[in-house]
Amino acid sequence: MIALRTLLFLYLLILFDGCTGTTNNEDSDATKRPFNFVILFADDLGYGDLGVYGHPTIRTPRLDKMAGEGQKWTNFYVGASVCTPSRAALLTGRLPVRNGMTSRINRVLFPDSDNGLPAEEITLAEQLKKAGYATACVGKWHLGSKEQYLPTNNGFDYYYGIPYSNDMDNVADMKAIGGYMKFWSSEAHRSINSFNVPLMRNTEVIERPANQHTITKRYTDESIKFMAGHKSSPFFVYLAYNLPHVPLFASETFEDTSPRGLYGDVVEEIDYNVGRVLDTLTAMGLAENTIVVFTSDNGPWLIMNQEGGSAGLLRNGKGSTWEGGMREPCIFWSPGNIKPGLVTGIGSTMDLYTTFSTLAGVPIPNDRVVDGVDLSATLFKGDPSPRNEMFYYRGDWLYAVRVGDYKAHYITQEAYEPEFTRHDPPELYNISVDPSEKFDIAADHPEIIEQINEVVRKHNEKLIKGLDMLKDRGNQKLN
Amino acid sequence: MIALRTLLFLYLLILFDGCTGTTNNEDSDATKRPFNFVILFADDLGYGDLGVYGHPTIRTPRLDKMAGEGQKWTNFYVGASVCTPSRAALLTGRLPVRNGMTSRINRVLFPDSDNGLPAEEITLAEQLKKAGYATACVGKWHLGSKEQYLPTNNGFDYYYGIPYSNDMDNVADMKAIGGYMKFWSSEAHRSINSFNVPLMRNTEVIERPANQHTITKRYTDESIKFMAGHKSSPFFVYLAYNLPHVPLFASETFEDTSPRGLYGDVVEEIDYNVGRVLDTLTAMGLAENTIVVFTSDNGPWLIMNQEGGSAGLLRNGKGSTWEGGMREPCIFWSPGNIKPGLVTGIGSTMDLYTTFSTLAGVPIPNDRVVDGVDLSATLFKGDPSPRNEMFYYRGDWLYAVRVGDYKAHYITQEAYEPEFTRHDPPELYNISVDPSEKFDIAADHPEIIEQINEVVRKHNEKLIKGLDMLKDRGNQKLN
Repeated sequence: MIALRTLLFLYLLILFDGCTGTTNNEDSDATKRPFNFVILFADDLGYGDLGVYGHPTIRTPRLDKMAGEGQKWTNFYVGASVCTPSRAALLTGRLPVRNGMTSRINRVLFPDSDNGLPAEEITLAEQLKKAGYATACVGKWHLGSKEQYLPTNNGFDYYYGIPYSNDMDNVADMKAIGGYMKFWSSEAHRSINSFNVPLMRNTEVIERPANQHTITKRYTDESIKFMAGHKSSPFFVYLAYNLPHVPLFASETFEDTSPRGLYGDVVEEIDYNVGRVLDTLTAMGLAENTIVVFTSDNGPWLIMNQEGGSAGLLRNGKGSTWEGGMREPCIFWSPGNIKPGLVTGIGSTMDLYTTFSTLAGVPIPNDRVVDGVDLSATLFKGDPSPRNEMFYYRGDWLYAVRVGDYKAHYITQEAYEPEFTRHDPPELYNISVDPSEKFDIAADHPEIIEQINEVVRKHNEKLIKGLDMLKDRGNQKLN
Repeated sequence: MIALRTLLFLYLLILFDGCTGTTNNEDSDATKRPFNFVILFADDLGYGDLGVYGHPTIRTPRLDKMAGEGQKWTNFYVGASVCTPSRAALLTGRLPVRNGMTSRINRVLFPDSDNGLPAEEITLAEQLKKAGYATACVGKWHLGSKEQYLPTNNGFDYYYGIPYSNDMDNVADMKAIGGYMKFWSSEAHRSINSFNVPLMRNTEVIERPANQHTITKRYTDESIKFMAGHKSSPFFVYLAYNLPHVPLFASETFEDTSPRGLYGDVVEEIDYNVGRVLDTLTAMGLAENTIVVFTSDNGPWLIMNQEGGSAGLLRNGKGSTWEGGMREPCIFWSPGNIKPGLVTGIGSTMDLYTTFSTLAGVPIPNDRVVDGVDLSATLFKGDPSPRNEMFYYRGDWLYAVRVGDYKAHYITQEAYEPEFTRHDPPELYNISVDPSEKFDIAADHPEIIEQINEVVRKHNEKLIKGLDMLKDRGNQKLN
């Protein structure tokens, strides 16, 4: 493995000529240049699925090292517990309930959905374009697959990836197999031909079905190429791996290598490719000019059994407003800039919008509510996180609210159960002391519940719900 | 905190004169000298309770760093899921079912127990004495509190600590409080005066009740003093912290500082003191001559709620033969000797016996079964672990057996439930793929069950059960 990596590194040095012989910035005003931003985004990765977040058999030496050199956040949240709204939150800095990428039920866009992210939403890419950034979206999009909704119409100069989830366009004969869940335990789901997902470059389909065995590597290749091609201008790369969302596919190099099985192979391949990105930035002399962040879109898809991930000690997973559904590993890296260490304060993917916009000198839109906060002082100086609140929506319903250490659940529901339960007073957990949400302390702390209720009242006062863009599907109008 | 540590470090440099001005070994034949051994042993610490094992709010920078510089083992087991037999396994290299430190039920020694570790057992300390080691036991013993069973009669030159668990000699009025479990949610358990536990030096009681607020620091002080006093001879220090076993006590410096609450304060104080041990070894120039290992005696005591720890993604805790009961964090450290990295192979506290004896040049007793294996090649060269099997006893009953990745449960039982269930065929889990023991694959793999059955047959052939030394208690003969 090491020999392979050495070769690859040499290959990169040759490929990007100009960077050989110097590992520092070539231009002397480097420090005055705005930071490049690279968001590495996994799909359905659980809180407990990396070595440095406690997994015993998934080996992630590169992410572990990234955490050691950078900041490891342990209370970092996504904006929703499923894919489409979570990605919309990251790219708009706004809760999905505001930006239209949520619905009465907790759902996502489908290949036949008519709609996508509303044009009036201002993505992080559109923000950074105002400051002259070169912008690329590589990987899974899932904010609308009709042309007007694609990345190139949302602030990205370049797009290479799949427009929705890797388990969509499912062409296997579900009836013959015996239904959707049976399919996932049948061999049919191991074939890329069961999923007629298109791979696109900008607005063109270039491969169908996308060969998912090599897709993690190819996403990384494309991202590296983009960075190398824009090393003299500031760039923003949003590299959204579509794995370890099922169906799981690894390359020949990684298949059957992890003690954790195929899920481990896939995560270890992502880890390796994260390493390639960091090595390339270092080799190009851009490491100190770039902020890289690694996280994922939502918790593990537990109903996928061994092919789903683990939320570690957190409760429940993808689809739920328990911690396991919405808290993710999050690692920031920028040698010489990010203050190395552990951050136990609260952060959110929405904060990337505000932090990166601010660092690029682009004002935050003031004609709408933006939910992100600027994390710079935490990242650079180790100050306490300025975020004190977290809203846990399921669909367009507010299920739970965290204020400081305390989280009140007004409604609880398991990820894939139809029944929900309203609580008055809400269930109350001290998330710092009791990260597994085992000990309801509501009876002992009515005063904390009152504080959280007040936060909810203020939140609701300012809330203008976006028009639900998820409910319409071209072929099957859902209500 | 950093200023405090700097001061302390300077203090150490002054205290141990002779080491100032040199951080390397003073004698030139240092490399020929046998290794010193330091076993740092926590009590009831869960698999998920350290930063580097995934806890979000317990901050363990020193143990995390130790893991980064050393080897982090993620499949490391203790010999039993409760205190006395687990400690007996570590110190004899033998399963408790052989050495007499187990019983029909899963129990431990009490202050009124007549017995202790049989004299014919050869402890690791007795082994190392044969090679001229200076030996100290600092902290919790729990292998017999009558004089003939104390550490100084079991191969240790020096003993400083409490002879059994820190929750024993309980003098609170349980009846008035409403019973044992009520006691643990009452304020009474926050007083050191509720526990009349003696602190001993060698065979003398020097303080009663032991002041547990300062005990972690004092254990560390004593260990450091012992190492400093024996730096020119090889030494073995068994430093067995009696926390985070309940009752939890932290010093003023640590109390109310951890986001995880009191349990976090206590673990963070241990972390800090582990750092002191490593810093002292480094300052004395002995780091490269010493192998330090950190682990714990059994999984978290889950019935203690917020004052018990977390097994992370592992199932169940202390008292059970699920992974959460018997798998522990384990970190080996010896700069320049231990090959840094992650080890996902199997290891056991019993292997410390065999490994350290072998490194000291002391033959393993050949008149009895010793269960330990020599881990040296894994520690020094990163070779695969030579251990392929693990036997999970509950009391003197064999509940489960792991062979390679697979674990067969012949009997299952929750930690504190009286009901047990026999399984024929056994439940079968792939522990590497499914560390949380969620997916029973027995029906698909009768051939693996047959292999494990064969291992059990061979194990039973050689098994001579030790005489049960736990069932007799001075005041209350239990059967």
